[in-house]
Order: sequence, then C-alpha cells, then structure tokens
Amino acid sequence: MENLAEKAARNLEKVRENKPLVHNITNFVVMNYTANALLAMGASPVMAHARNEVEEMVSFAGALVLNIGTLTDKWVTAMIAAGKTASANNTPVILDPVGAGATALRTESAKQILAQVRVSVLRGNASEILSLRRSDSKTKGVDAIHTVEDAAQAATVLAAELNTTLAITGPIDLVTGGGRACRVANGHPLMAAVTGTGCTATATIGAFLAVDPDPFSAAASALAYFGLAGEVAGRTASAPGSFMIHMLDALYTITPEQLAQGCKIEND
Amino acid sequence: MENLAEKAARNLEKVRENKPLVHNITNFVVMNYTANALLAMGASPVMAHARNEVEEMVSFAGALVLNIGTLTDKWVTAMIAAGKTASANNTPVILDPVGAGATALRTESAKQILAQVRVSVLRGNASEILSLRRSDSKTKGVDAIHTVEDAAQAATVLAAELNTTLAITGPIDLVTGGGRACRVANGHPLMAAVTGTGCTATATIGAFLAVDPDPFSAAASALAYFGLAGEVAGRTASAPGSFMIHMLDALYTITPEQLAQGCKIEND
Amino acid sequence: MENLAEKAARNLEKVRENKPLVHNITNFVVMNYTANALLAMGASPVMAHARNEVEEMVSFAGALVLNIGTLTDKWVTAMIAAGKTASANNTPVILDPVGAGATALRTESAKQILAQVRVSVLRGNASEILSLRRSDSKTKGVDAIHTVEDAAQAATVLAAELNTTLAITGPIDLVTGGGRACRVANGHPLMAAVTGTGCTATATIGAFLAVDPDPFSAAASALAYFGLAGEVAGRTASAPGSFMIHMLDALYTITPEQLAQGCKIEND
Repeated sequence: MENLAEKAARNLEKVRENKPLVHNITNFVVMNYTANALLAMGASPVMAHARNEVEEMVSFAGALVLNIGTLTDKWVTAMIAAGKTASANNTPVILDPVGAGATALRTESAKQILAQVRVSVLRGNASEILSLRRSDSKTKGVDAIHTVEDAAQAATVLAAELNTTLAITGPIDLVTGGGRACRVANGHPLMAAVTGTGCTATATIGAFLAVDPDPFSAAASALAYFGLAGEVAGRTASAPGSFMIHMLDALYTITPEQLAQGCKIEND
Repeated sequence: MENLAEKAARNLEKVRENKPLVHNITNFVVMNYTANALLAMGASPVMAHARNEVEEMVSFAGALVLNIGTLTDKWVTAMIAAGKTASANNTPVILDPVGAGATALRTESAKQILAQVRVSVLRGNASEILSLRRSDSKTKGVDAIHTVEDAAQAATVLAAELNTTLAITGPIDLVTGGGRACRVANGHPLMAAVTGTGCTATATIGAFLAVDPDPFSAAASALAYFGLAGEVAGRTASAPGSFMIHMLDALYTITPEQLAQGCKIEND
Repeated sequence: MENLAEKAARNLEKVRENKPLVHNITNFVVMNYTANALLAMGASPVMAHARNEVEEMVSFAGALVLNIGTLTDKWVTAMIAAGKTASANNTPVILDPVGAGATALRTESAKQILAQVRVSVLRGNASEILSLRRSDSKTKGVDAIHTVEDAAQAATVLAAELNTTLAITGPIDLVTGGGRACRVANGHPLMAAVTGTGCTATATIGAFLAVDPDPFSAAASALAYFGLAGEVAGRTASAPGSFMIHMLDALYTITPEQLAQGCKIEND
C-alpha cells in the first residue's frame, strides 16, 4: 500500500503551490471559519449559493464542498445543480450531511444529493453517515454497532452501497472506500469544543481532493493534516477561543515535512 | 429569597452535565460566535431555520432562542412555528428583539412573536424592550424614564403586561418577572465593543433556561456568568479582538465555585 | 493639495466622536468580522437586508455599504432599494463588487447597482473594477494593462466614465476620482490570508464616508488606517488566525496621531 504520510506531505505542498479554488455551498455558522481555514492552508475559497450562479462558479473550481448545516430547500436545489455540473466536469464533490438522522429534511436532502450527484467523499460522524443507508441496506444501524470492528465492517458495506469514500470522524477517524480502509488518529479533544471543526475538516478534504485524484488518500491525508493542526494548537491553547485561532495559525505554519512526521494514519 | 449566587453555580454545573441542546433561530452576524459560546459553556448548539424543519428540530431541544437581528418575513414565520411547538411542549423560549423600536419591521415582528409564542424571557436593551409595550400600556416610554427607579418601575409594569420575565441589559442588568426583580452588576466595558455580546447573553440565558425551570433565576444567573466571563477576559485583554477570544476561553474555564464567588446579583 | 495624513487623523477622530451608523448589506462570510471591525474603530454597524426594512433602516444611517459577496437576486433588489433611498437622502454609498468579472450574475448585478444608485466609492481589486467598464469604454481590459502607469490611466478614465471614486486595492492601493489620484502603501502581506479583509476595507471606507463628505479623501484615509492596522498586527502576529484578531485590536488602539505619522499616502 502507498505511504499515506508521504502522500499527505505531497498533497499539502500541492495545495500551497496550486492554490485550488474550492467552491463552498455551506452553512452560515461556519462560512467565515471555513474560508479562513482554506486561506490559511493555501487554498482559494469561494462561497456562492445563488441558483443562477452556482453552475458557472463551480466550472472554475478544483473541488465543490456541499454542507447542509443550515439548509433550506432552495439551497439544496442549488447544491444539486452545482453538484451535477461538477460531476459532468469530473470536478470532485464532497458532501457533509450535517445533522442527517436528526430531522427528516436533513436526512432526505442528503439522500437526494447522494442520488443525483457523484459524491467523491462523504464526511460526517457515525450517526450522520449511517442514517444515509438505504432501506434495503446490509449495514447495521448505529444501535447495533458495538465495537470498532462492527463500525469498520458497516463502513465497508456502506461505502460500496453508496459508491463513495466515507470519512467517518470522531476521536479516531475512519476512511473507507474502494476496498481500502485506514484510521487517522490525529486530533485534539478541544476540536469538539469549537463549532464547525467537522465542517472545516470537510472543506480541508475538499482542498486536498482538488490536488489528489484519489478520494481515499485525499480524505485520509486531509484529516491527518487537520488533526495535526489541532494537536499543534493544543500545545499552546487550553481553551476553545484561543484554540480555534491557533488552529488557523497551525494550518498556515505546518510544513509538509512536519506533516509527514506527525501523520498518524494506519492502514486497516 | 433564594441565594442567586448558589443557583448560578448550580445552573452552570447542570449545563456542563446535561449539555442541553439549544435551538437557535438567530441572525447571520452572531451565529458563529453564539455557537462557539454555547459550546464553550458546555451546551450543544444547533442552528436551523427552515420552515419545514424547525418544528421537528425544536422538539429535541432544551430551549429555543429567537433573535431577529437579520430578520426577513420568512425567518419570522419559522420563528413563530418553532415557538408554537416549543410552547406546546413546555420548552422554554427566549426572545431577543434586536433593533425593535428602530424599524417598523422589527417592532412588529417582535410583537407578533410575543403575541403568538409563550416567551419565558425577553432580553434586550431598555429601548428595545420598551418599544414592545402595547399602545394602552401603563409603562412610560424611554424618553420619560430618567432614573434607575423609573426604569425598574417601568420594567415591573411591562413584565406583568407581557406576562414574561424581562432581562434588560446595560452597564447594570435588570431582571424582572413574576413579582421579583434583581440587578446584575457583572460585566466589562469592552463587551460593548464586540458584536453580538447581547445576542450571546441571550443564548446563554437559553442554555440556563434548559436546566432551570425558573425564568427569573435562569436569566439572572446566566447574565452573572456571562458578565463574569467578560470580567475575566478584561483582566488579560485590553482591545476587542483579543477580548472576544478570551471571553470564549473564560466561558469554558470559569468553575461553578468561581461563579458563586464572582456573582454580583443584588435582589431589588 | 490637502494633507491627506492630517485628514486621515481627523477622520478617525470624527468616527470615534460621532460613532456613525453604518448600514451594511453584505455577504455572510464577513458579516461578523466587518461588524467587529466597525465597532473596534468606533462606528456603529447595523446589518439589515429585508426588502421591507432597508429603506427605513438606511434613512438613519451615515453611510451604506453594499457588498455582493454571497448575492442572490433578492439581496440585489434590496441593495438597489436601499441605495436609491440613500442617494435621495445624500447618504454616501460604497459598493464592493466581490467577484465581478468571475460570473455573469456578479458582473451584471454590480453594473445594475452602479446604474441605479449614486455610488460615492467603488472598492475592489483591479480585475473586479475593470470588469465593470461599459462595452464602449475607453479603458483597457485587465490583459492590456502591463505597468503601474497603464493601471493609473485606466483608473482615471474609468472613474470619469462611472462618475465615482475608485479604490483599487492590492499591495499598493490606488484611489482615483474627480481628477485626483493617490497611492496608499500601508498594508501587510498577511491581510491576503484572512477572508474578508477587502470587504472590511470597504466597510472602513463606509465609516469614513459618514464623517468626510469628500469620497477621495475618505477612501484614501480609510485605506491608510486599515492598512496601518495590518502593519501593527503584523508586528506581533506571524500567522493569519492571530493576525486577524490583532487587526481588530489595532483598529481599536491606533490613535489619530499614530495614523498621521504612519500614513503612507502619496499623491499621484
């Protein structure tokens, strides 16, 4: 198997060299932080959600990030339109199904996007991701998953059923797709005390997808980089306000070499 | 009368233990800061405003925060729908009538919400709150209020007329409702130099309402806690950028014991 | 020619004394940062975009800031309504045509606003500004501009054609209008690594327009002040997260005297 730590370093290098345009149709809560994170890592963020603009905008983009955190029907319509254009252009799409499983609108909207758009990576926590299995799925529900092995097996089945790469984040992240799987152990507990860290992890994967055609290595390496930024921030900050600012700083200062060394990706 | 300092400590403890879900339908300017503040104090924020989602979302919530800072008619419709469901479920609702009195849309929207939703606490500055009195109110207008006693008396009358608890914030906060009244002297001048501190005070009251069935003590103790976070931030920060980050840190680090000691609530 | 450094100091002083209300109809990404920057410098920000509110709101304002960063047709309609009222009241309007030239919606929306609203200052980068020239314009396109002199000449022609003052920002800012031109050399490279610094520069010009009836000196002095805040921030911060917080601090702490001394405006 490829060396994912080296891949991570190369991907970060490429993001900084190519400054890929990452088109985000995302939620109001995280727009500012996400844009700042993308700029800090070296990418070029753009936020645009108007139905009569998204197809043109995404045609310039290296990746499209869809996030349903503060969705309405209109926004989902724009996401699908942008996603279809991206699919047609072979532009990678990443979907963050924020709150899927919590309300019908969120679950159904995420399923609709998955049905109509070719999604390269689907990033969420375990309950969000598992809420998106089809009614005839062979994957167990969240309540029937008791061990790490259960989770890994469910992810493998679901990734095949949804024909995408899954990035299931938590204290340990699980990336599964195309018959491969790995775990990413980078991260810091304070990440859970800052709003939109999940959403920003998604945007980071978006930036990496723009420079790495392999969704599996793009997702794993982006999560390692993002988690490492959390670790670096956690060395100087001990509360969430300072932590979130230090994370932006770390995204900017971490070098490809430091990423190669600090990367905690284990093939499954 | 109960010891509000002890109540404040207990409320903070409960927020951290129960991590109540606080559903916010709030303005674009403060969504990120509010969510971060709620996370920092230990609550679980969710932002959702779609008309076809809010009733389902609020049914899981411990409290509902309504804030008209960047309102449109559609958002107000969603606020009222969510508020009615909350009322039906005995879920406490707090309303922040940002800019009421400044434009007709804001004043009328806030009045509509008050007429259709059972609002546990109404938080705003004096002119916002007084703009919501009915045409036949016995409360004086802002221009006729010259002394602290005038303000306290007007608040008592208005709280009874609107059948809610008023949290009127300023250099000294005034909490009035159900025949009780107190003043909260915690706070720091730099709070006025950060956008959305009022809105975030409102969200903090939301979190406390989720763990304290008494709107009066929930509002007073939340304002003391929030103001104390300002005081703590002001010890290390002397300009508003650093100050707003240190406030998030302080919301996270202040212990119930420190709150009990630092609380400046005086019964009226 | 007037001494622009002294004018800058006087303008900053006036913003802090008068605390002008600056009405922003701006994009979701920068609303929070812009509001915090306006507060930090001493102005009073308000964000309001509802079609049935903007005319009333702008009637109280000292300046109107229009920014199309996350535009939809509805928002543009509200911008034009607010802009017309502002024009009728002689309230200065500043337009930030974010992304003009990138998509048809943005270019056309910015042109529509320019056609229907009397815009005192148009702030953007060179490609945004040049995308707004009319089809019969005598201004060269971006591709035909090779030297600083080309750019200055194009700006002079375009400012006359659009009958406004242009503030073209970049490593060196160019302000042109009414037959006058100057360059502003204040600034710091990290400003480009923070989202919305351009938008916040626009809002700063808005605050200065509210206290200075001359769009040329208002724009130049605001850019010098904003750029100086970047320089001050850059003395202590070396990565974008800390930098953006220190910029807010610097907007608050810079004195009129420091601005007069640190101002790098050169008449052309």
